[in-house]
Parts: sequence; C-alpha cells; structure tokens
Amino acid sequence: MNELTFDYRTLWDFAYAIFIKIGCPPAEAKQATDVLLLADLRGIDSHGLARFSGYIRLWEAKRINSSPKLRIVHESPSTAVVDGDQGLGLVVAPFAMEIAIAKARTCGTGWVAVKNSNHFGIAGYHAMMALEHDMIGMAMTNASPLVAPTFSVERLLGTNPICVAIPAGEQPPFVADFATTTAANGKLEILQRKNQQAPEGWIQKKDGSVSTNPHELKEGGALVPLGSDREHGSHKGFSLGAWVDIFSAVLSGANYGPWVPPFVSFLEPPADPVGEGIGHFFGAMRVDAFRPTADFKYHMDNWITRFRSAKTVEGQPRVIIPGDPEREFEIKRRIEGIPLDPNVAEDLKQLGEKFGIKF
Amino acid sequence: MNELTFDYRTLWDFAYAIFIKIGCPPAEAKQATDVLLLADLRGIDSHGLARFSGYIRLWEAKRINSSPKLRIVHESPSTAVVDGDQGLGLVVAPFAMEIAIAKARTCGTGWVAVKNSNHFGIAGYHAMMALEHDMIGMAMTNASPLVAPTFSVERLLGTNPICVAIPAGEQPPFVADFATTTAANGKLEILQRKNQQAPEGWIQKKDGSVSTNPHELKEGGALVPLGSDREHGSHKGFSLGAWVDIFSAVLSGANYGPWVPPFVSFLEPPADPVGEGIGHFFGAMRVDAFRPTADFKYHMDNWITRFRSAKTVEGQPRVIIPGDPEREFEIKRRIEGIPLDPNVAEDLKQLGEKFGIKF
Repeated sequence: MNELTFDYRTLWDFAYAIFIKIGCPPAEAKQATDVLLLADLRGIDSHGLARFSGYIRLWEAKRINSSPKLRIVHESPSTAVVDGDQGLGLVVAPFAMEIAIAKARTCGTGWVAVKNSNHFGIAGYHAMMALEHDMIGMAMTNASPLVAPTFSVERLLGTNPICVAIPAGEQPPFVADFATTTAANGKLEILQRKNQQAPEGWIQKKDGSVSTNPHELKEGGALVPLGSDREHGSHKGFSLGAWVDIFSAVLSGANYGPWVPPFVSFLEPPADPVGEGIGHFFGAMRVDAFRPTADFKYHMDNWITRFRSAKTVEGQPRVIIPGDPEREFEIKRRIEGIPLDPNVAEDLKQLGEKFGIKF
Repeated sequence: MNELTFDYRTLWDFAYAIFIKIGCPPAEAKQATDVLLLADLRGIDSHGLARFSGYIRLWEAKRINSSPKLRIVHESPSTAVVDGDQGLGLVVAPFAMEIAIAKARTCGTGWVAVKNSNHFGIAGYHAMMALEHDMIGMAMTNASPLVAPTFSVERLLGTNPICVAIPAGEQPPFVADFATTTAANGKLEILQRKNQQAPEGWIQKKDGSVSTNPHELKEGGALVPLGSDREHGSHKGFSLGAWVDIFSAVLSGANYGPWVPPFVSFLEPPADPVGEGIGHFFGAMRVDAFRPTADFKYHMDNWITRFRSAKTVEGQPRVIIPGDPEREFEIKRRIEGIPLDPNVAEDLKQLGEKFGIKF
C-alpha cells in the first residue's frame, strides 16, 4: 500500500482547525477531533479521517449544526432522552454518555437514548468513557440503511454497531466493538480500493442471491446480517441489528429502519421522516452496584487470562480478547504515526485548501 | 416423525406433580412448570419436557435445591444481585426478573445479576414478563461450556442465549430469543435423533477443523460462535457470548467460562470453582422512562409493519419478525396439543413410575 504516515498531533491540529472553521465552539471542536482521531489511532480507518469530508459536506448541506443546543427532553432517575439538535454525533454522543455516567453514579446504572443526532464515529470511544469510573459502558447507534434482513431484498437497517466496554484489573479492559453485519461497510470500501472480491456471505445481489462484488450496493444489493444466511443464523444478526435500531431510535424519537437519513450529502433524507435525525443509545453500570470492584476486577483478570491462554488451532498464536487488536494499533500509531490511504490524504488536502488550513 | 401429541393441561399437571414430589413448595412448583412448559408450547422443544428428567437427576445428585431461600445480597436503586441458593433456575429467574421490574417502576430501569442458580429454561419467559408492564425485558444466562471461541480448540463458553422482548401496540411484541452460537445445541440433538449431518459452519473438530458430524462434541469437538468462522464474523459471536458470560457471572459471583458446572448429572462440576452455580442477568426498562408509551407503541407498530411487509427474495412469503414463529407455535399448540418425541415421552413415563405419578 502506498500509504503516507502522519503524526497524530499534526492530524489532530488539522482536524481541530477545520472544526473551528465550520463554527464549532472550541470545547466541542476538541471533543469532535478526539473522537474522530481515535478511530484512526485504533485502526478503524473507515470511521476516522476517511469520513471527515463527509461530515463537512453534511454541514455545507445544512444537515449538521455546528453549534447545537444539547438538552435533556425527558428523564427518570436512571434514564434520559437527549435531543442532539442536529449536532455532530461526535459531540452529542459524549454529552449523552456523560449523563449515563452521572445517573449511574447516583442510581447504579444510567441509560440514555438520543434523537436528532448524526454519525458518532466509533462506538468504542463513548463506551470506553465509563471505564475510568469503574463502570461498564455500552454504546450503540443506528445508521443509513445498507443491510437486508433475512429473506428481504430491501435494505432496511444500518450496520448498527454495538460496543460493550468492561473494566479489568491488571489486564487491559474487554472492549467488544462491532457492526451487527457479517462485515462492516468499511471492509467493503477497502476491497473496492484494492479491486478485490469479497468472500461469499458478506453481500447479496438485488434479488437476494449471493454476491462477491464489493460494488454490489451500487447495483441495488445489500450487506447481510451477522450469520450470512438463515442456515447460519442470519436471523440472529438481524435480531441484533433490529434491537440496536429500536433502542436507538424508537425509544428516543429518531428515525429508524429505512427512514434513517443517509450519511452522504448527495442523497436526500426521506421526505416522510418518522422521527428526528439518527438515534443512539448509551448505558453505564457501576460495577460496585453489583459487587465490590476489587472482586470484580480479580475475576475479570482471571477470565481474560484463561481465555487468552486457551489452546489454539494450529497456526494461531492465541485467542484474541475483544479490544486487543485495537489497543495494539493505538499503542503503535501513537508512536509511529497514522498511515493514511493516498485518496484520504488527497481528500484532506482539498478540504484544507477550501478552508485555508494547510495540510 | 412418530410423535405423540399431548394436551397442554395434562402435561402441566404431570410436571407440577413431579415438582411437588421433589419438594418444591406449591407456588414454586407452579412457577417451574409454567416456565418449563412454555418452551414446549413455543416450539423450543429442546428446553421443555425434553430436559425435565435432567433437572430431576440434578436434584437427585443434590446439585439442585428444591426449596431454596432466594435473597438479595447486594443492591443499589436500579440494581440487585440475587443468590439463588442452588434453586431451580426455573424459579430463581422469575424471582430475579420481578425485582428488575420493581426497580424499573421506581427508577426507570432495573438490572439484576444472579449467582448460585441452575438452568432457567427459555430466556423468553423471563424477558417477556416485562411486557405486561409496558417495559422492555432482557434475559441472558451462561451455560455449560460447549463453544470454542474463535481460534480456540477448547470449549470455554456455553451457548449463552440472550432474549430482548419489546412491547408494541396493535402488533404482537418483538421477542428476539437466541443462542449466541450459529446453531443452538437443541438443533444438534434433533440431527442426532434423525441421524442427519449438520451444515458446515456449525461445529468444529477437536483440532478446530470443520465438521458436519452432529456427534462431534463427544469426540472433543465444539459448537462455534455466531458467524461460524473469522472471515464471517465469529469473533463477533464470541464477543456476544463473552458479554453474556461476564454480565451473568462475573458481575454476580457465579462460575464463568470453563468453570460453569455441567447440566448433566453424570459429569462432576469443576473441582476448582471460581464462583457459585451458574449465572443469569436480567433487565427491565420502563418505556415511559424514555417517551410516552402511546408514542412508542405507535412507532413499534410502524417498525414491525414496515419490516414484515418488505419485498422478499423469491419463494419467501415475508420477512419474519423476531418472535413470530414461537407465537404461531404457541397459538397452535395451546389448541392442538404438544407433540413429544417418543424418546421424551418414554423418559417422562419412567420419571412418572419413579415418583408414582401416572403419565
């Protein structure tokens, strides 16, 4: 790959400057930059700077509000609903997660549904906010419809990711952050750039038959739920994606299913919305609302150690604990820098020129 | 199939009489029978009367306590931990779910982790308890290790099911109840009885290679997580199963991972337990802690109607909403009776003879 490598700080300063240029208040520009760049640090390249110009185009189309008034519109001791006022999900999501954490502090757990938001970057950033408080964190979001439920030829769900972050003691935390499809859309984008075929079981054609063409979505095809087909449990992946959609949007009053507005600015949102913006759902559970934190951490360490040291199939050095690969990327990239695809680097250069910021 | 069909009430009376014979107090015998039989009604045949003699053998082995003292050992406004005192999970689980519902009534949501329990039947029974209160219900449990995480040849997790039950208005509720493996163990048992091969992607051999032999677990093989293999997202299925294990057991103080005691009485529990019994986790969320119930139900009806009427692949009449097949079974079997496999019927006959109850 002809990737160019950039220092984290350089990229951070660039993104921050652009967020300021579009009118974000400084604290929110910092927050948005932190969330966006954590994707690049953790190796989830599809959700970081590769999407930056997409966010900016949505702002230009007046579908993102760079200085939203975020507010709680409904609450109970352990719950809240936040209206994101069309803000950047990168800013709305941490605001909502802080409320979940505050509720957990007084009530044991806190659960916050969000409406009227936009894409929130990686779910992991928000769920992991709970860890430093010795809480378990959860984050999920719905997204533009790209996925066909089992037996459907229509795209009705997004790749609807879930993250669960669980603190440990000596061991690093357990952080499971995944799309509820067989493969995330970002993996298709990589195959498109490399001009490679996808494995069977990731994509279907517009008639529902199996495809290996990573460009199939442009032809009316769809991603498929985790499980790939009915025989291998795709109805379970569909159930998961549906659960995320309902918690994120039917509980909050956002758009759900096929009504979720598209991330790309060249496609118009549906003319008959059923809610406001896209939806998210966050949770925080204080570990010591269940058992003493030290006991919990001792057993999480034991859990992680036992699973990581399991006997493996030949050729595989170890069982991977959720969060291991992303953490290894983050350690490496903070030191060695972040490699960017040449197309992404060019995109950022043009973005910089538009706003008079040197890239 | 040479199945015999029995009236629901007849089977209920039989099971109730046996639970009384082993020493369950009447209210608990009724509860256990209701949970056990709902599996048979809803077509989840592996989790109903087919397991009845297994529960009784665990009682004979003094691993199930038929008159447990259930108690809360730790709590916060929205959480509790229940000690099941080695009781039947069929009784412990509804007790814990009632606490979750009571906490949700005052606090918006309630979350209860359980230790020192046994198998709880179908997750759906417990999660669906929330529906009549206009709450969303969740239930999950860990189970005997039969599943190898991605890249492992060791069996470290159970089939660890999750159920999410969501109320609707005119439409029947959304009830997603599924094992976090490609196929539940009950499906293997059916193939074993019919002497049929399993599809590729359900089972691995003891060296981790693909198997289609439904008896492979007796040879040291394992079930695989939802996703089947790494390329098709089995690390996500593993993450889900791990999440269930940690919420059910590391939060509560039950045994987790490979330490979960076996369901079958002829296998001894591990000599080095890391907790007490098996673990469950329950949640209840009051819909009106997020938005007015009528609004929520209106949009759930719209969600369900839109997905159910999606354009389908040729030959499939409609998209199946989670809970549809089980509800159709229940309607039919309440009227027409419950078909039992001849082996299960013979098993019940012997059980009856042992306790002097006519089957």
